[in-house]
Amino acid sequence: MATKYQALLEKVHEIYDLRKAARVLTWDRETVMPRGGDADRVDQITTLRKLSHALFTSDEMGELIEAAAAELNGVAYHSLEASLVRFLSRDYASARKLPAAFVAQQTAANNQATAVWKQARAEDNFALFQPWLERVVELAREMARLYGYQDDLYDALLDKYEPGAKTADVRAIFEAAKNALIPLYQAVGRRRLAVDNRILRQPFDVARQAQLAHYLATAVGYDFDRGHLATAVHPFSTSLSPNDVRITTRYDPYFLGMAMFATLHESGHAMYVQNVHPALNRTPLAEETSAGLDESQSRLVENFVGRSRGFWRVHLPRVQEFFPSQLGQVSVEQFYRAVNKVEPGFIRVEADELTYNMHIILRFELEQALLAGRLVVADLPAAWNQKMKEFLGIVPPTDRQGVLQDIHWTMMGFGYFPTYTLGNLYAAQFYEAAVEQNPSLLEEMAAGRFGALLDWMRQYVHQHGRKLTPAEIVTQATGRPLSHHPFVRYATAKYSEIYGL
Amino acid sequence: MATKYQALLEKVHEIYDLRKAARVLTWDRETVMPRGGDADRVDQITTLRKLSHALFTSDEMGELIEAAAAELNGVAYHSLEASLVRFLSRDYASARKLPAAFVAQQTAANNQATAVWKQARAEDNFALFQPWLERVVELAREMARLYGYQDDLYDALLDKYEPGAKTADVRAIFEAAKNALIPLYQAVGRRRLAVDNRILRQPFDVARQAQLAHYLATAVGYDFDRGHLATAVHPFSTSLSPNDVRITTRYDPYFLGMAMFATLHESGHAMYVQNVHPALNRTPLAEETSAGLDESQSRLVENFVGRSRGFWRVHLPRVQEFFPSQLGQVSVEQFYRAVNKVEPGFIRVEADELTYNMHIILRFELEQALLAGRLVVADLPAAWNQKMKEFLGIVPPTDRQGVLQDIHWTMMGFGYFPTYTLGNLYAAQFYEAAVEQNPSLLEEMAAGRFGALLDWMRQYVHQHGRKLTPAEIVTQATGRPLSHHPFVRYATAKYSEIYGL
Repeated sequence: MATKYQALLEKVHEIYDLRKAARVLTWDRETVMPRGGDADRVDQITTLRKLSHALFTSDEMGELIEAAAAELNGVAYHSLEASLVRFLSRDYASARKLPAAFVAQQTAANNQATAVWKQARAEDNFALFQPWLERVVELAREMARLYGYQDDLYDALLDKYEPGAKTADVRAIFEAAKNALIPLYQAVGRRRLAVDNRILRQPFDVARQAQLAHYLATAVGYDFDRGHLATAVHPFSTSLSPNDVRITTRYDPYFLGMAMFATLHESGHAMYVQNVHPALNRTPLAEETSAGLDESQSRLVENFVGRSRGFWRVHLPRVQEFFPSQLGQVSVEQFYRAVNKVEPGFIRVEADELTYNMHIILRFELEQALLAGRLVVADLPAAWNQKMKEFLGIVPPTDRQGVLQDIHWTMMGFGYFPTYTLGNLYAAQFYEAAVEQNPSLLEEMAAGRFGALLDWMRQYVHQHGRKLTPAEIVTQATGRPLSHHPFVRYATAKYSEIYGL
Repeated sequence: MATKYQALLEKVHEIYDLRKAARVLTWDRETVMPRGGDADRVDQITTLRKLSHALFTSDEMGELIEAAAAELNGVAYHSLEASLVRFLSRDYASARKLPAAFVAQQTAANNQATAVWKQARAEDNFALFQPWLERVVELAREMARLYGYQDDLYDALLDKYEPGAKTADVRAIFEAAKNALIPLYQAVGRRRLAVDNRILRQPFDVARQAQLAHYLATAVGYDFDRGHLATAVHPFSTSLSPNDVRITTRYDPYFLGMAMFATLHESGHAMYVQNVHPALNRTPLAEETSAGLDESQSRLVENFVGRSRGFWRVHLPRVQEFFPSQLGQVSVEQFYRAVNKVEPGFIRVEADELTYNMHIILRFELEQALLAGRLVVADLPAAWNQKMKEFLGIVPPTDRQGVLQDIHWTMMGFGYFPTYTLGNLYAAQFYEAAVEQNPSLLEEMAAGRFGALLDWMRQYVHQHGRKLTPAEIVTQATGRPLSHHPFVRYATAKYSEIYGL
């Protein structure tokens, strides 16, 4: 029975193991490796990636997929077997579209552009970076043509991170979100003195912060028997297998919010993969189905759980045990308000739950204009600053705090930025649906019990891995396609109450 | 020019990267990985090893080696190119001798035997392990036959760890060493109360021990820019590249000697590969040339440096800063004597510099007898205990503290044990030659300066990697083949002085 499928599966395991091995090497590089090892490590990672790419894009793999598909004809859509072959067919077709020569060009351009971008950012010199960004934009257009698209060149890039998503839909949703969120942000701004977060800006011993981070990750359901928490300059989570999903955080000795919320955020990412159904292990289905869905889970844990009143009702006392002199006298209400302060800022990764989306929509609009040729790279800094003024009312004094802050474009990651806000919108829609389906959730969460909410996520999102597309998951879980309304409702209610609007 | 060689080199880089990647995964498994990840990690490591083995033993590799050899005909023996092709030819021929079916049998037997051995050791039940050890001995004989040998079946196994070494030579050297060291040990035993090491057996804070370990590794020349120190149950060192050679140690909160000397030992191993000539990188030449030579460098740093008077003359004050209440009043002489106490014990890994060799010679004699059929597995525990009585005058009360203590035989590592004592003998011969060639070394070392000694090792041993065989290195460096005399002279002088014989 199913011997073609078995043969395919064996090859898939091999490729999966190589990909995961490359991730172990990358994790180690970011968290343990001495600096002297870097050049050799890059060689090792490159070798692993080349080999897994060669194995995956081989003619043999194409034949294995076709043979298995023929053998499985008629097997249920939701079965592991049909889902795996469906996913592999799509992924294989896509991977075969980029010729090796193009990939080599792209890798070289990324590496050189990254070096120049680092220098340009350090020296606040956009002109230095400009020709490289022009080259990257050109290559991204070429990549989109190679992948192919029907309506919009941007569709081909977006699809890499949010399979099946269409630019026109995202644009409409973001436009609507923007039109609702900018007035909300402006209303909050007029009451900005209503919330004070200075209690979070005191000296906090880093060793104790690390213990607190461990405590908080455990509190939200991150499984340390199948995980590990380390320190990294830029926090990330990475799955080395569904049974070994690791997180990193960073510590600011003078701001408690940094480590607490980075840890909760990465725990949310990691729990998604920790909860993928075990039957999917050692296949590419044992991953988050899209960058947006992945972000929905990190945001859910960071914000819907970690910035809720109920959460701190239960956990503030423990935080106070870690930091009695700094926080011993603080009330739950004070703490809740402090972690929800809205403040305009120049830097995306430091933005609060509300203004974060403004940073994203800005980038989404600019990168579409760049790729469509409506905006030339030379005019990008001015366009950036103009939108910052329009969305947030502030203008970065330097390009370093503006257009040069993120690495994504340098790495040709056009199409990635929108997934951050898609994550917020998905999270709100999931949250609303979970509460609709089970109204007692509200009471539970108010009492600091989030188990039922996370069980809902496990059932409707996590367990499926990549068996379903993002659109399939959202529709199955919430009964409707993605919309901006739940997030706008959630944000409006939350900030109106906190800021007394 | 040399295009065949370039083609070979490219393939060698790929295989080397895969092997090193497997080591990164193993390092991570031993030091960071959560327990839940173990099954998946074993799959990943197995996939990497299978792939690198398949690439290395392919017909294509054989053709590449042959073509490069033909192209390089006449190139100098010591050149990188000739050395690499020479090494690869030997290694390829050897790797092709084991059929895949045998390797699969061996892996399965090792895995099962390991599980049974763990249980047998926990329950002190040799009978449980006996049939598995019989099976392993049979497979080891089969492996020796597959590799092939002329004089002695054991030669084929020894060659895996000490390329080119002959059983008859090792046997003669060990016999002579034994005849000199047993009387020395007995003389020391009659004066055992002359040395007291109770100052090392006090409570020592583990966090401070870790800082001390870092300090000591740096002091002997271990390069932390190309290394990392972690904690592991069984200390080891591993080279993830010559620019990333890591060490582990372990901490006993009631015995300072454990972490100090495990760290120095592993630093010695690691410095060998850290000092391999950079031109050898990304090839199998960038490794220690044999297990014995590797052990010579760990023993040199642990004992000839780390258990010398000069070393503590310089570093005891720093140790006293870490542990003022425990060691503040201790003199250099007291400390030097304490770290050189000779004590008979049942456990090899806890043995001192002198009795360690008795543990090894015992195992060397027993494993030869087993493989030759002169000893049956059922009689092994009695034979073990009889030799313990003969060599050290003590008999383990349980097999757990006797024949069941080591994993080596379980893993079919026959031929490995002698390399530990070979390491001690090599170290002494190197040490004596370095002093002969540069008599001012003695004064330097007495003043705690070991730079010149380590430079000598770098020049004569480290930099060559596997370009030369162990015998070539020893002869070039010391002008004569390996002998037991230098170690016997060193040990006799050292312990006669310490114990007032």
